[in-house]
Amino acid sequence: MSSDRIRVVQWGLGAMGRGVARLVLDKEGLELVGAVDIRQDLDGEDLCTVIGGDPTGVTITTDPVSLLASTEVDVVTITTTSWVEQQLPDLKAILSAGVNVVSIAEEMAAPEAQHPEIAEQLDALAIENGVSIVGVGVNPGFVLDHLVVTLTSGSQQVERIEASRINDLSPYGETVLRTQGVGTTPEEFEAGVADGSIVGHVGFPESVRLISDALGLGVDRLEQSIEPIISTVPRQARDRAIEPGMVAGCNHVAIGYRGDTEVIRLNHPQQIAPEAEGRATGDYITIFGVPEIHMSTGPEIAGGLSTAGIAVNTIPRILHASPGLKRIIDLPSPSALMGASAYTRR
Amino acid sequence: MSSDRIRVVQWGLGAMGRGVARLVLDKEGLELVGAVDIRQDLDGEDLCTVIGGDPTGVTITTDPVSLLASTEVDVVTITTTSWVEQQLPDLKAILSAGVNVVSIAEEMAAPEAQHPEIAEQLDALAIENGVSIVGVGVNPGFVLDHLVVTLTSGSQQVERIEASRINDLSPYGETVLRTQGVGTTPEEFEAGVADGSIVGHVGFPESVRLISDALGLGVDRLEQSIEPIISTVPRQARDRAIEPGMVAGCNHVAIGYRGDTEVIRLNHPQQIAPEAEGRATGDYITIFGVPEIHMSTGPEIAGGLSTAGIAVNTIPRILHASPGLKRIIDLPSPSALMGASAYTRR
Repeated sequence: MSSDRIRVVQWGLGAMGRGVARLVLDKEGLELVGAVDIRQDLDGEDLCTVIGGDPTGVTITTDPVSLLASTEVDVVTITTTSWVEQQLPDLKAILSAGVNVVSIAEEMAAPEAQHPEIAEQLDALAIENGVSIVGVGVNPGFVLDHLVVTLTSGSQQVERIEASRINDLSPYGETVLRTQGVGTTPEEFEAGVADGSIVGHVGFPESVRLISDALGLGVDRLEQSIEPIISTVPRQARDRAIEPGMVAGCNHVAIGYRGDTEVIRLNHPQQIAPEAEGRATGDYITIFGVPEIHMSTGPEIAGGLSTAGIAVNTIPRILHASPGLKRIIDLPSPSALMGASAYTRR
Repeated sequence: MSSDRIRVVQWGLGAMGRGVARLVLDKEGLELVGAVDIRQDLDGEDLCTVIGGDPTGVTITTDPVSLLASTEVDVVTITTTSWVEQQLPDLKAILSAGVNVVSIAEEMAAPEAQHPEIAEQLDALAIENGVSIVGVGVNPGFVLDHLVVTLTSGSQQVERIEASRINDLSPYGETVLRTQGVGTTPEEFEAGVADGSIVGHVGFPESVRLISDALGLGVDRLEQSIEPIISTVPRQARDRAIEPGMVAGCNHVAIGYRGDTEVIRLNHPQQIAPEAEGRATGDYITIFGVPEIHMSTGPEIAGGLSTAGIAVNTIPRILHASPGLKRIIDLPSPSALMGASAYTRR
């Protein structure tokens, strides 16, 4: 099927973008036709400079507009930021070039949740150019929203949903540990939340919106809380020891209400070594309704791997979608791309 | 939204059809505009004759062609049989009337699996009439196929899939118990499989086809086996006692191969009181790949409730689909219908 391969440009060559690029190169139905980054020192270099391995024949450019004007491209996968406002100029450039977009910006999973006017702009621009755009990721975009929605496929009634994602931050680097407050004192944690340096999870407003819209749960108010997970035992991170009384991570909770009724509760405690206090990592979804459903995974569906994976697996879905701004709940589910029929499924 | 309600006809008033009819009546975004059955003694009766409760204003008819010719109908939900060939004339009548179809016939979950020529006919007829048709159910159509596919949303590689659905037949009636061999001796079980009176689960070729097509796993051979579950302890069904050495149920296994390599294994042991021998009921899905994923539900997602539920929840999805024969993997996932946005989601 080489002549029918889907032509992809990877925009952004951070850790996640490099993972996406490697995976696109690995998939028989996809052809990587370009790579974009802002680092001037990479301009003109072969992609292998950043992803390793043999020369790829793909040249990195810092000029995406020229690339999109001079190359036949079906889909851009963009992995530059979590924030819609920051990504907007780039998204407009891609859509204006008549190219479909898969973004892993957390806010793009449901941009209407926090930026309704931007969502309308993107929808109109995509339709005008006959292409489509979607935001995905492991979370938001999969575990705490689309998987929840799918689990209600056969539900006659849903009263309330509670879902938790319990993961271990041990493999992560300094940026993640810092933004989750790992290794701080309770006082430092409180100060960090106040000054915005400790942010918790990005994506709850979007996940709640996806679930509420899909089921028609009518959530009209969202409350979020960020609390320190204070360790009662010693825990060891890659580069630091957490003593009892110190902060092992961040417990971020979002509650969606319809009027005064809680209908969605999402928990995402992110910490170092949760098993040190007997908490197993995993994803837990409970649907209170008819029937009642209890689902769990153990361990949690791996975050970094699955975010790169879903970005790539969504490429055929967005290529075959009708024009406009889409959300994961609007598309046939992405799935692993293992052979020819996975690319042609509409 | 009453003026925009989706107009539904329920065709078939067995146990499952009655459940679908009740649920359609219960949902604010749906309007039940007709009911069909073959029983002449029901012709002209109010639907409450079979579903109980107050008069519904919906009259049962034995003449679906006249009903569809004289009434504005958006979707027919049909619950008459498991078998595509048996249902084909009715499906043709509905499509020819320009009406969309949701069927719970197990073989309709992927009719191309066992009846490719019928699948082509239905696809052509649906397109000709500008409508769409899909087969759904708890299994096939959800737990052992679409849920598996959705769980691979972020998978970079999938080598092999194994999934099991362990349920308890205790609540079921005589027909189900007989077709699963409950209460037979091992010799009677063997004879029942040979003469076709013990059939096991209906839907494995369809589930394997859905997974293989979605991921492109290239399954080119299916092997199925049906073995008795011989009890080692006494078990009690509603109407019969199972002594040790007798058959408590039927262990049905399907294996999909690509060449000589096993890539999909589905297990569905259906029996009375599995907990009597320490087996918990539940759904278990393992994706061997990158990442490896282990999912379970406990208890299993309720069968009867969820089949009626998914038939109803799929109504908006098939109404908004492009014309043709669809499979659950081709549509945005159905989800519980709890409020207005659930009906308008495309």
